[in-house]
Amino acid sequence: MIIVMKEKATAPQIDRVKERLDQCGLGIHLSQGVERTIIGAIGPKKPGLMESIEAMDGVEKVVPILKPFKLASLEFKTTSIVKAGGVEFGGNQAVLIAGPCAVENEDQLFKTAQAVKAAGASMLRGGAFKPRTSPYAFQGLEKEGLKILKNVSQAVEIPFVTEVTNPMDVELIADYADMLQIGARNMQNFTLLKEVGKAGKPVILKRGLAATIEEWLMAAEYILSEGNYQVVLCERGIRTYETATRNTLDLSAIPLVKQLSHLPIIADPSHGTGKRPLVTPLSRAAIAAGADGLLIEVHPDPENALSDGPQSLTFENFEDLIAQVRPVAEAIGRQL
Amino acid sequence: MIIVMKEKATAPQIDRVKERLDQCGLGIHLSQGVERTIIGAIGPKKPGLMESIEAMDGVEKVVPILKPFKLASLEFKTTSIVKAGGVEFGGNQAVLIAGPCAVENEDQLFKTAQAVKAAGASMLRGGAFKPRTSPYAFQGLEKEGLKILKNVSQAVEIPFVTEVTNPMDVELIADYADMLQIGARNMQNFTLLKEVGKAGKPVILKRGLAATIEEWLMAAEYILSEGNYQVVLCERGIRTYETATRNTLDLSAIPLVKQLSHLPIIADPSHGTGKRPLVTPLSRAAIAAGADGLLIEVHPDPENALSDGPQSLTFENFEDLIAQVRPVAEAIGRQL
Amino acid sequence: MIIVMKEKATAPQIDRVKERLDQCGLGIHLSQGVERTIIGAIGPKKPGLMESIEAMDGVEKVVPILKPFKLASLEFKTTSIVKAGGVEFGGNQAVLIAGPCAVENEDQLFKTAQAVKAAGASMLRGGAFKPRTSPYAFQGLEKEGLKILKNVSQAVEIPFVTEVTNPMDVELIADYADMLQIGARNMQNFTLLKEVGKAGKPVILKRGLAATIEEWLMAAEYILSEGNYQVVLCERGIRTYETATRNTLDLSAIPLVKQLSHLPIIADPSHGTGKRPLVTPLSRAAIAAGADGLLIEVHPDPENALSDGPQSLTFENFEDLIAQVRPVAEAIGRQL
Amino acid sequence: MIIVMKEKATAPQIDRVKERLDQCGLGIHLSQGVERTIIGAIGPKKPGLMESIEAMDGVEKVVPILKPFKLASLEFKTTSIVKAGGVEFGGNQAVLIAGPCAVENEDQLFKTAQAVKAAGASMLRGGAFKPRTSPYAFQGLEKEGLKILKNVSQAVEIPFVTEVTNPMDVELIADYADMLQIGARNMQNFTLLKEVGKAGKPVILKRGLAATIEEWLMAAEYILSEGNYQVVLCERGIRTYETATRNTLDLSAIPLVKQLSHLPIIADPSHGTGKRPLVTPLSRAAIAAGADGLLIEVHPDPENALSDGPQSLTFENFEDLIAQVRPVAEAIGRQL
Repeated sequence: MIIVMKEKATAPQIDRVKERLDQCGLGIHLSQGVERTIIGAIGPKKPGLMESIEAMDGVEKVVPILKPFKLASLEFKTTSIVKAGGVEFGGNQAVLIAGPCAVENEDQLFKTAQAVKAAGASMLRGGAFKPRTSPYAFQGLEKEGLKILKNVSQAVEIPFVTEVTNPMDVELIADYADMLQIGARNMQNFTLLKEVGKAGKPVILKRGLAATIEEWLMAAEYILSEGNYQVVLCERGIRTYETATRNTLDLSAIPLVKQLSHLPIIADPSHGTGKRPLVTPLSRAAIAAGADGLLIEVHPDPENALSDGPQSLTFENFEDLIAQVRPVAEAIGRQL
Repeated sequence: MIIVMKEKATAPQIDRVKERLDQCGLGIHLSQGVERTIIGAIGPKKPGLMESIEAMDGVEKVVPILKPFKLASLEFKTTSIVKAGGVEFGGNQAVLIAGPCAVENEDQLFKTAQAVKAAGASMLRGGAFKPRTSPYAFQGLEKEGLKILKNVSQAVEIPFVTEVTNPMDVELIADYADMLQIGARNMQNFTLLKEVGKAGKPVILKRGLAATIEEWLMAAEYILSEGNYQVVLCERGIRTYETATRNTLDLSAIPLVKQLSHLPIIADPSHGTGKRPLVTPLSRAAIAAGADGLLIEVHPDPENALSDGPQSLTFENFEDLIAQVRPVAEAIGRQL
Repeated sequence: MIIVMKEKATAPQIDRVKERLDQCGLGIHLSQGVERTIIGAIGPKKPGLMESIEAMDGVEKVVPILKPFKLASLEFKTTSIVKAGGVEFGGNQAVLIAGPCAVENEDQLFKTAQAVKAAGASMLRGGAFKPRTSPYAFQGLEKEGLKILKNVSQAVEIPFVTEVTNPMDVELIADYADMLQIGARNMQNFTLLKEVGKAGKPVILKRGLAATIEEWLMAAEYILSEGNYQVVLCERGIRTYETATRNTLDLSAIPLVKQLSHLPIIADPSHGTGKRPLVTPLSRAAIAAGADGLLIEVHPDPENALSDGPQSLTFENFEDLIAQVRPVAEAIGRQL
Repeated sequence: MIIVMKEKATAPQIDRVKERLDQCGLGIHLSQGVERTIIGAIGPKKPGLMESIEAMDGVEKVVPILKPFKLASLEFKTTSIVKAGGVEFGGNQAVLIAGPCAVENEDQLFKTAQAVKAAGASMLRGGAFKPRTSPYAFQGLEKEGLKILKNVSQAVEIPFVTEVTNPMDVELIADYADMLQIGARNMQNFTLLKEVGKAGKPVILKRGLAATIEEWLMAAEYILSEGNYQVVLCERGIRTYETATRNTLDLSAIPLVKQLSHLPIIADPSHGTGKRPLVTPLSRAAIAAGADGLLIEVHPDPENALSDGPQSLTFENFEDLIAQVRPVAEAIGRQL
């Protein structure tokens, strides 16, 4: 941590900062510039200290040196393979997860599971508990949806991931699902993160729609710090001023995360764009950028979907997506 | 709802949209322009229908006509007075809520409560359950913090508001507090919104850091639709590209909300700016814009605060804030 | 400037950075932390050096210590009064500038000038050269518009400000106008900034719609560095994800600029909100935040305006605005 | 254009809107909903009319039906091949443009031109007139830089593109360069757009850092409407809240533009990310998304570059980029 004092900081103000660092057991390195005094603090960072120094008189700003995440960092571990229901994330094989936004009924899910498996997907997705912007919108089949997911998953022999939105439901959902998903709106629902950390199930952690990369890795850190290391990150678009797409899919996040963390990272071009015709081009791009997998919304009949119809692919669209994405994966030395 | 068909939409595509609307019991109003066919759908909106139409072939876009919120709208009610612990939000008197970000110990809170009450605050704030970006940061005193809040509140005779972050804690916190707060990160934690709706306690609902005004009112709608009408909105800054402030306090939200909703709205310039020297000028501005109150972080010793030190006011700062804000309130015909 | 080396930076990489700083005549201050080596560079900053160091192997990041602007900074000067056409910006009197977005004809401008002067405005605004998003939209009366502005200004005895968009027009416009305006889209049109700097006329510099405060002050620095110190900044809203307003008026910019710079700063709530019913509340707020003036769009007949009708006030609206803003100005010890 | 009246709009207000549309020669289509009156206006759109209707009493909002751009639209033309210095943009071959941010001297440029041509680039880039945030930074060699570009271009037999920032310089630069570039900061410098339109040279139009896709296409429309159809769009990153990258490269813009316009579109991952290690992964992604080319900053010695060192590739990096991008291009059926 480096402390930059104000131009007119007084000697007593500088002394108080030094005392404070000293009390916290940090080494002090003073540098007297022409216009500013700079204080370097050496030693292990104490939570909250940076903010506290920033609040002191005479301090202009405090610059952190080390990243705030530890267990998620490359310094802790160089690479992670996350296993869920027999599927490996982070290896040479890019993972295709596909399915409807919401589980609507057994028939819809069964057909979709068969179709996406036949096309090449290795995991099924489907929401039973749906967080919706409007209290009047379809909120998911809840426990009934979980049962359908389980039945279909067994019948079609494909593992499944489903979203958990309520800390109280973690245990229940973990009993059914092969993998849990934390949605963008819950990325900083810390109670939920801790519960999922304790549940010990593999988890997909979506990036919050206004979360920085650092905040996202800190959210992963919550799960990791509970002892659950099976975390896969998922870039799903961030909120920007652009209204032509539902979100702006930030593909630079993929190589950037790989330079900061050992965790696998996949992309969700369905939510990332919100528009069916953009899903396939952005899927190609995500894989080319180095994504470890894709999360794609597929529905037997998008225009009758209870949610996310405009961004859902038909079975035929999905087959075409794979046909287009596979050569890109191979071009960068991976398999799909 | 208005449906704009693509330039090259075929007659069968147009017919399918019409059939669909008809099935949903909506009246149809067709308008054949020079380059586009426009279909107006008349009648009560069904949740999910808009998205579903948008997913149909030949549809370019769907334009909603009515606002998606009902109970929060001005059409439902023209004005609300929300009462909490004897304090009224939405009346002529602007409400001052003040206190530390986190409850640290009884002494800290007691001194603060006395000081802010003496200065003119009518409600105390203080966090017992603290959602923090880092799992390693101080997470609040939890239940112990609630007890301290209760004791101090009774001793100093000032009601208090405190944040609830976990649906499982709502009942517990509602037993202690005069008013609940839902923080920015939980604005779309729909499980929490519903629980708070059921609890029936007055609630402050902060705007999410990337939430549109409409999404914010829809979050309020979740609480209202559970039968709890005691909702006060709180503008606390949104996330923008600007890094000179912690957030960008969007004061246009204040008159805008008043044109859309009957709910009272207050402002939090402490989180909205993240910088102590900006809190007082933005407090003056928020009241001038028509805010029904202010939520201000005050700490006896900001540089030893366990959180949010850089934006916390000292007791002296807070007295000065009131001295500056009161004449502004009076200038627009209100009291503080 | 502080250079943070990567965790695995080698001794030769560190040496190369030191050599480079030494070649540039900078003092070096080395700090060996537990996990990182930090190099402080002491002495006058050379343009481009920071970027260049950042490009060196083994460097993690470079942190600037000093602000990049000099002439615009408070360290250079503590306060500026900018005079234009007999009007003073930055003094105790807040300045009201009003008029139509575009000059349409002499009658329209004459009526508006009379009305806004009678209501209390001390400067007239009106665009002759209009930068428009569409090449098919009304582009302004150009030189004819300047003549109308001059005639009306003399007849009504009120000075005027008008926008300059083309470096080639600066001299022409400077011959007519009392004050030049640089619009948001041209804030980083550096050629234009230099020409306006050379023209020596007082100038209003609007904030770019995605400009940071620092970039804005650097744009002012371009004008100042040509010897023209008569610069007034104008906050006019920034682009955010929120679509309910045309822009998000960033009122925190007002006290923030006052903590960084001696330049006067005014606000433009017309462009800042894009909605007539928000202009007056945000005008009250801007003055309460400390703005040195307001720039307001007024039109005799907004619904027949050739541009910006939805945000233009009628004469009656404008009188009401003043009646509401004046007591706020007085409440903070200023005059309007 | 569809006009949505307010819930409480009066009959006279509705009549006035109808009269207005009638005066403008537009057909009227009235739709009386349960809660709102909707007026459809049929016929050719008049510039400014929409804004003007929006300013009328009783109007809630006005929804445009048609895109505001014509010559840039797919309805005008289905595909464009832009030719510049023997290079074709928009064909099966993706175009590689490479070179330094700024021309520093003949030796630097000559070496770079040779290296990038040998590696596979078909066009050279290099700035002679540099728009810089700081007036104290290197502003380019100006006319001297143009001469160096011309000499090197001829000696190495590679065409070149260079930025134009001042309308007065367009003619001069057009005499030297094979292709002109309009930078992000000048995307809405309408005077410059018109001059470049008149110059008749092929042009690369970068997206403004806060420009919507629609505004960008409208900027292209300015050039096209002057009769210059040789426009190539370039996505170079937009400004978002994320600070880990210099900008957020919006790759969804590539397929989106292809669905709206016939103009070729390339990507600039150097400015788009601002970080050398991200340039190659994002280059792969841009090509996979369908970009018609790449614009890459290459410098013989990035750490001594006078600008943009941190994002510039070395010759070796650039060869590696091509080795990685070429198979991706081939995977989607294109050549590089």
